[in-house]
Amino acid sequence: MSATADDYRWMARALELAERGLYTTTPNPRVGCVIVRDGQMVGEGWHIRAGEPHAEVHALAMAGEQARGATAYVTLEPCSHHGRTPPCAEALVNAGLSRVVVAMEDPNPLVAGKGLTRLRDSGIEVLSGIQEAEARELNIGFISRMTRGRPWLRLKAAATLDGKTALNNGVSQWITGDDARRDAHRWRARSCAVLTGIGTVRDDDPQLTVRAIPTERQPLRIVVDARLETPLSAKILDGSPVLIAGAVDDAERIAALKRRGADVLILPNTGGKVDLPALMTELGQRGINEVMAESGFKLNGSLLREGCVDELILYFAPALVGDAAGGLFNLPALTSLTDKRQLVFRDVRLVGHDLRILARPA
Amino acid sequence: MSATADDYRWMARALELAERGLYTTTPNPRVGCVIVRDGQMVGEGWHIRAGEPHAEVHALAMAGEQARGATAYVTLEPCSHHGRTPPCAEALVNAGLSRVVVAMEDPNPLVAGKGLTRLRDSGIEVLSGIQEAEARELNIGFISRMTRGRPWLRLKAAATLDGKTALNNGVSQWITGDDARRDAHRWRARSCAVLTGIGTVRDDDPQLTVRAIPTERQPLRIVVDARLETPLSAKILDGSPVLIAGAVDDAERIAALKRRGADVLILPNTGGKVDLPALMTELGQRGINEVMAESGFKLNGSLLREGCVDELILYFAPALVGDAAGGLFNLPALTSLTDKRQLVFRDVRLVGHDLRILARPA
Repeated sequence: MSATADDYRWMARALELAERGLYTTTPNPRVGCVIVRDGQMVGEGWHIRAGEPHAEVHALAMAGEQARGATAYVTLEPCSHHGRTPPCAEALVNAGLSRVVVAMEDPNPLVAGKGLTRLRDSGIEVLSGIQEAEARELNIGFISRMTRGRPWLRLKAAATLDGKTALNNGVSQWITGDDARRDAHRWRARSCAVLTGIGTVRDDDPQLTVRAIPTERQPLRIVVDARLETPLSAKILDGSPVLIAGAVDDAERIAALKRRGADVLILPNTGGKVDLPALMTELGQRGINEVMAESGFKLNGSLLREGCVDELILYFAPALVGDAAGGLFNLPALTSLTDKRQLVFRDVRLVGHDLRILARPA
Repeated sequence: MSATADDYRWMARALELAERGLYTTTPNPRVGCVIVRDGQMVGEGWHIRAGEPHAEVHALAMAGEQARGATAYVTLEPCSHHGRTPPCAEALVNAGLSRVVVAMEDPNPLVAGKGLTRLRDSGIEVLSGIQEAEARELNIGFISRMTRGRPWLRLKAAATLDGKTALNNGVSQWITGDDARRDAHRWRARSCAVLTGIGTVRDDDPQLTVRAIPTERQPLRIVVDARLETPLSAKILDGSPVLIAGAVDDAERIAALKRRGADVLILPNTGGKVDLPALMTELGQRGINEVMAESGFKLNGSLLREGCVDELILYFAPALVGDAAGGLFNLPALTSLTDKRQLVFRDVRLVGHDLRILARPA
């Protein structure tokens, strides 16, 4: 049987529910579930945080006996394995569902399709791929980690309309307005980690926490700091999780940073800098789905050059400061425009008085 | 009597008609007129080109006897003076209109309000200011010339998302795509003049004509060329109107350019460059309403610094080329962000694969 308009409507509701876990489910994906019987919602739920029940379990508990013969809408293929919670495919079979509609299969190649097979083998009608694009966007970091072994990295920068992030005397704060700042904190809040460079730590001494909006979870802070020069007095060393990624195995410096509560990881590349792709792989292994890079000219350029950037979030203030001011990205000079880094615009909108552009490598 | 919803609806129609003269009315304003009797349109018209009848005359001719007791909607106050055509206020009185609704008064301070007074003195009910903001936008250049004695200048530039217009080896062509090019030609077509600098003439040898869309009128081309270095073989010297604005009174060079069909104007400032504000005043005196500047880094910066820019049209291609590449505006280095040139975004949209931003000085 093919999809009906109602299938899309109920899946949209399931996606809405899934999104309630945007700031909390890490390292798990955001998942929502709606159970519908005779055109009426009889149960719904969403995954809140790792270790707690999956979306399907909440929805089944709410539906109770009414789940029998009903249709379940789930934004991600129900799991078929025993993890920290029992398999959801099993729970749906036991509850007597007659139809299960999912937005997308599990992105983990080791288990993809197994949950759907378990359902079909029990005689449940299964439909997959409804609102799949939306479901993929919602868990773009989780999917990246499952399929590429590394997080989805968003590079955020704020500039004037002539592409300048700072004056040539280093003045850079408050280029964009309060609304843009709040918006950026929303992106921080959904990220598993916020990444910056030693230059930004030294110049701006940021906290890199989510403060402009409410959240119950703070992302891991990561400093790319090849020579382990993060000042022991830096605000970022506030006792909450911080990872310093360095390139020199300086036992004394490492011990000092660890005494200030930081985790230290030494990942040198052949040039004596931090091996950024290796850092991404390491973060993937640590369950980091989405990384937000909020760095300066140099690290911005390195992340782009080394292929670590999956998305740009650029805030443009309606102002001009002139060509002497500092630019966005330290990238090598090109000799031909055919060598330019091609992007596609994904979203363009005004945020307060500023312009926000989302773009991805083409 | 106050305005009704119908008044707004009919004025919107009159504005639509006015816009049909977008590419042709110069140096006159674009004006549309609708005559409505008993809720029915009985006559409409728009001004097509200077020396030909005004919008009201066309609409009255169509309405004939039905104009008696009707309401006329005009996007600009009817003229009260004998110009190349008889006064329209007079014609409306003679036709027996009982009510006249106008979007805005005549911006010419010498005649503003006189047409409306003439109508009121004849017992016609007059309402002014309906859809005034839209009417002002439509004739923003004409209004600028009438109130400031100079044209409205739009500076157009195309850049990559990191604000670069050219590589450091000078390669600059085709940063943006076909749709953006066509869109830029629409802005050219509505302009009375297109202005560029000698650098662009030398590097790109542009024609600066409207080619990507149909038009029956080509704008005047203007080259800011302080030392009169425009090559006599330049494509822009094609026999159609070209004005070379120089700063050196070199009789031989002037004669050579004139033999190639160019008009030459010598307007030096104290620095030996072309006095750009004086050039704007001169263009105002010559009946130029809207100027589109399509220049490079240097002239862009000079126009901004000297307060000649009323609007920016920026096309951003979804690409990055890196900081070594050429920037948008040659502006002096700032020491504080409070000195930045503040703008307001006016319109932001995708044009093909590119982003178009309209912004104006705040």
